Parts: sequence; C-alpha cells; structure tokens
Amino acid sequence: MSIPETLRFDAVSGLQLLDQRILPHEIAYLDITSLSQAWDAIKTLAVRGAPAIGVAAGYALAQSMRELEPDADFRTTLRANADYLCTARPTAVNLAWACERIVAIADKTPDAEALIAEAQAIHREDIDICTAIGEHGRDLITPGSSVLTHCNAGALAVSQLGTATAPMYAAHAAGVDFIVYVDETRPLYQGARLTAWELHSSGLDVKLICDNMAATVMAQGDVKLAMVGTDRVTANGDVVNKIGTLGVAILCQHYGIPFYVACPSSTFDPHTPTGADVTIEERASEEVRGAHGADVPVYNPAFDVTPAALVTAIITERGIFAPQEVAGALA
Amino acid sequence: MSIPETLRFDAVSGLQLLDQRILPHEIAYLDITSLSQAWDAIKTLAVRGAPAIGVAAGYALAQSMRELEPDADFRTTLRANADYLCTARPTAVNLAWACERIVAIADKTPDAEALIAEAQAIHREDIDICTAIGEHGRDLITPGSSVLTHCNAGALAVSQLGTATAPMYAAHAAGVDFIVYVDETRPLYQGARLTAWELHSSGLDVKLICDNMAATVMAQGDVKLAMVGTDRVTANGDVVNKIGTLGVAILCQHYGIPFYVACPSSTFDPHTPTGADVTIEERASEEVRGAHGADVPVYNPAFDVTPAALVTAIITERGIFAPQEVAGALA
Repeated sequence: MSIPETLRFDAVSGLQLLDQRILPHEIAYLDITSLSQAWDAIKTLAVRGAPAIGVAAGYALAQSMRELEPDADFRTTLRANADYLCTARPTAVNLAWACERIVAIADKTPDAEALIAEAQAIHREDIDICTAIGEHGRDLITPGSSVLTHCNAGALAVSQLGTATAPMYAAHAAGVDFIVYVDETRPLYQGARLTAWELHSSGLDVKLICDNMAATVMAQGDVKLAMVGTDRVTANGDVVNKIGTLGVAILCQHYGIPFYVACPSSTFDPHTPTGADVTIEERASEEVRGAHGADVPVYNPAFDVTPAALVTAIITERGIFAPQEVAGALA
Repeated sequence: MSIPETLRFDAVSGLQLLDQRILPHEIAYLDITSLSQAWDAIKTLAVRGAPAIGVAAGYALAQSMRELEPDADFRTTLRANADYLCTARPTAVNLAWACERIVAIADKTPDAEALIAEAQAIHREDIDICTAIGEHGRDLITPGSSVLTHCNAGALAVSQLGTATAPMYAAHAAGVDFIVYVDETRPLYQGARLTAWELHSSGLDVKLICDNMAATVMAQGDVKLAMVGTDRVTANGDVVNKIGTLGVAILCQHYGIPFYVACPSSTFDPHTPTGADVTIEERASEEVRGAHGADVPVYNPAFDVTPAALVTAIITERGIFAPQEVAGALA
C-alpha cells in the first residue's frame, strides 16, 4: 500500500490525523492537542469513516484526561468529555461505542494512561478486524468481475485496509484481476477524492463514475456485485450509510446484483430497532450549492437508510451474516 | 418569467445564443457569425437542450448560406454544412431534424432568406409546442404535490417554457402550490445551474438535491411524480436522456411513482428501433474529475437509455402517449 496512515499516535506527538479534507492534493497531518480540536476534526470530516472516527475519538478522549482541572472529578469530567465528543457526528455509532469503552476503563482504573492503553487496543483491534473482513469477503470477488462501491469505506476510513475495500485489497493481493467502479459520492466527493485515489494508488483497476452513472454500468452488465460500508446497522438489519447508498441498493435489486455491506460488528446497533429510528444529519446547503448552484433552497441529508430487504449480506470480522441475523449476532 | 431568452435572431445581429456555460453567474450572449462558432457552441453546451439545439442549428445553417464561395453549388454546400453541424452532438435527434428541414427548403427555393424563414418557423413552432406540452401536462401536477426533475428540460432548453418544465410553469401560472425537487445533474450541473435557477427565478418552490438523494426523498414519500425531458425517443418507446435519468426511472418503479417524459413529437425517432441502437456520447474525463478527483481513469457517458417499460407516459404537443404508442404516433 502506498497511501499514508489515516491516523497515528505516540507518547510524544500525541494523536495526529491525516487531514482528509485536502486529499488527494495535499498530504498533511493535524496535531490534535485538545478535545475541541478533535470535535472539529470529526465534525468537518478531517477524519471520517465510522471505524476511524471511533479510533480517533478513543485517543482524543483518553488524551483529554491527561490534564485535569484541580478540583475536577475524573469520572465526571470523562463523562462530560465523552458526551461532548459524541455530539460531533450523532449518526456514527462507532463514535459513541469507542467513547463508552474508554469510559468503562475509568470505572476500574481512573487514570489517563490506562485510557490511552484502551485507545491503543481499539486501534489494534481495528486493524485486525479489517484484515478479517478482507479474508471473509475476498472470495466474493471473482476473476474478471467488477465491483461497484460508494463513498469511502476504504483504508482511509479505518486504520488500514478499509471495510468495504478490505475484500478488494485482499483479492488484489491474491492476484485476482477485477475492476472497481467508484461512485464519486456527492456532495463531498469521498469516492472521487478518497476511494478512487487510494485504490488507484494501491494498484487496483479503478473507474471513477458520477453517482448517476451507476444504473448505466449495471444496465451494461458491468457490475457483478456492490460493496459498501456502513455507519450503523440497526437491530432489524437496516443499513445506515452515506447518502446515495439506498439508490445503489435499489438499482442492484432491479438488476439482480448482490448488494454487500462490510463493517466491524461494532457497527451493529442493538439499541435501535430499525432505520426509521435513526436521526439523519442534515448538513449545510453550501455543500450542495458549491460554486455551481444558484442561490436556491437545498435539501442535504448526509445519510440514508437501506432497508434490510435490499441487503444481500453483511461481511464482518466474525463472518458473513444475513441482515435478519444481525439481532441474533449481538446476543 | 424573469429569465433571459435562450436564443434570439434578427436580420441585423443574426443569431445570438445565451451562453449557458457561465449561468447563473453571468448572463451573456454569443454572437454566432460562422458555422464553426455554432458547432463549438453546440459541442461545448453553450446552447443545450434538444429543442434549443434544433432551433439554433436551423438559424446557424440558414445563416451559413448567406455567403457562398464563387464556384460553390448551393445545395452541395448546404448538405456539407448540415452534415458538419450534425457531428457536434450525434445523440440529439432534433439537431439532425432541424438541419433536414432547412435542407428540404433548398430543394424548392435554394436561397438563404428562404432558409432563414424556415428557421424562424421552427423557432415559432417550438414556442407553440412548449405551450401545448404545458397545457397537456398541467393537470398531472396536483395541489400540495411534489415533482422530481433531472437535468434541464426547462425554458433554457427550448425557446421558452421548457418541455419537462412546461407543465410546471403552467400549473404554477394556474395557482397550483407544489414543490419541485431538482437533481443537480452531475457532471455538468445542468440541474443546479440551470433548472433550479430558472424555476426559482420564476417564483416556483424549488429544492435542489444531489442526484444520489433522489431515492431518499422518494422513500420519505415526498415525490408524487417525476418529469424529465428527452433527447430522443426510439420507435419502441425507449427514452434517451441525460445520464442519471435511467436511475430516476428505476427508483420511481421501486416506489410506485409515475415517471413522465415531456418532449416535442419531433423527438420521436422512427428510424431507430430501440435505445440499444443509439450511440451514446462519451465525454471528457476532466468533466468528472474536475478539481476534486485524483488522476484516475473515468467513465463518462453523457446519456442513458430508459427502457419503455419504466416510462409511464410521454407528454407531447399532440397529447399524452403511452411509450408503446410512439411507433403509431409517427404513422
């Protein structure tokens, strides 16, 4: 792999995040020395992708406890810090999940270094999880086939290898010859700026398309499967992911193409019954209007909900699940 | 209507085209004084929209015959000029249709002024056609409903009123209260730059969305019908239109939403049996890559084919047709 690390941490420099807002034009790291910097980085998508947000949040929250106000209570402050950090991206379940893991450590060991050790454990597990997702999903990609993906559930969304892209990297490493169609993913172009760049830089055969071209490449018989990541899988198997995912899933059903979702099992959310119960972030109009649009009203939901019925299977580090198996997998 | 004319012609200034490449930021007209300028304007989408291309081509071709090389034969030169102009946008059937009307006049009257009179007739008919499309389609838009449209089949695509937008303008003029969801239409943003702007400027209630948000607004029950234009309807009722139309039609079928196409009956192409027989323009990679994408391979088809089975009805100046009635309508 010839792409830079999504994030890095050491005792001297602390947490550093690859600034994904300026990729692929510039490669620069943000030094995260305060919780509000971490909040900003998550909010403005300098770090994005559910697992990477979780890993970054774990480090940022642990770091924030290194210096405590004189009269402050460790656990009260940690709770407040965790709650604050979680407001940066309310839809991303891994953000809350990572913060709760850090908070839980403080119940036994209210010490910043113990929290940092837990953040490092989350980081290591993330790498192991992506490797396992790649192994479980690799054989779905057959020689001469083609895969369509949306947004960036790639190496840049996690510590390395990616979730939706892990099977692609694994198949490529195994010498399988295939093409990846990458949706550009408006309005923030995560597909064009991140996925197409990281796959192409890693030697995979990529074709970048506009989101609205997916139907045409499917109609031409050029897509054998779709594979995307997810920010949250609800108890009934509904999949919350970047806006545009629902459309891809409907097109797949229309053309009889399998639609796969890849994620760590930590993305399963047992506390939310269905996708209808998820609050969908609505983002700023300017993201859509950009330099091109007139000054007109905009609707800009950041995520959509793909009903379980449209999902062929969910690839996790623990194996491949049917969407209706999600609730049981959590038990 | 508070938007500028798409094109204008008078004996002194000749043909002038509103430069749609710089809308809505600048309103400027191109003086078309040579056939190669017309070719460039059509090729680079300074003028776009099937009917507007036809009207512009008619004037440009007629104008080109005002000065003839000393030894040149009128009809031979006209044929060569027409063939040259048609290479600018091979998918747009109105371009060839308008050129053939001009050429046919020369069979009786090989005189530039007679050709210009024919171009003016095409222009007047275009205005009458859009008015009639608006009247036929108006009642499909009911109070409190919402319409989704893709690309620009608006006033800017024709002489005035538009094709897909004519029923919207007519319903608005009749006091019907409704919302129009406008797909931004990557890669050239005709929806964001042109349709959203012209409808909003004309007082209609508009919401601009990214192409990949159409599924979500449909899933929320917020779209009662889709209405788009077309560049060509083949004999079997297949609809060739801006890339992304096929995806909208599939989403409409999935959600049980009627999918209407509006066009002049001159867009019906009896000589092409099905959409599979149409050559689809592939445009430059840079349009997709823009400032955002990495330097990766791109697939950039400009049009797609929506099968007749996904089309609810086609609204023309002659009334509303089922797609399977297209071949008969031509007889």
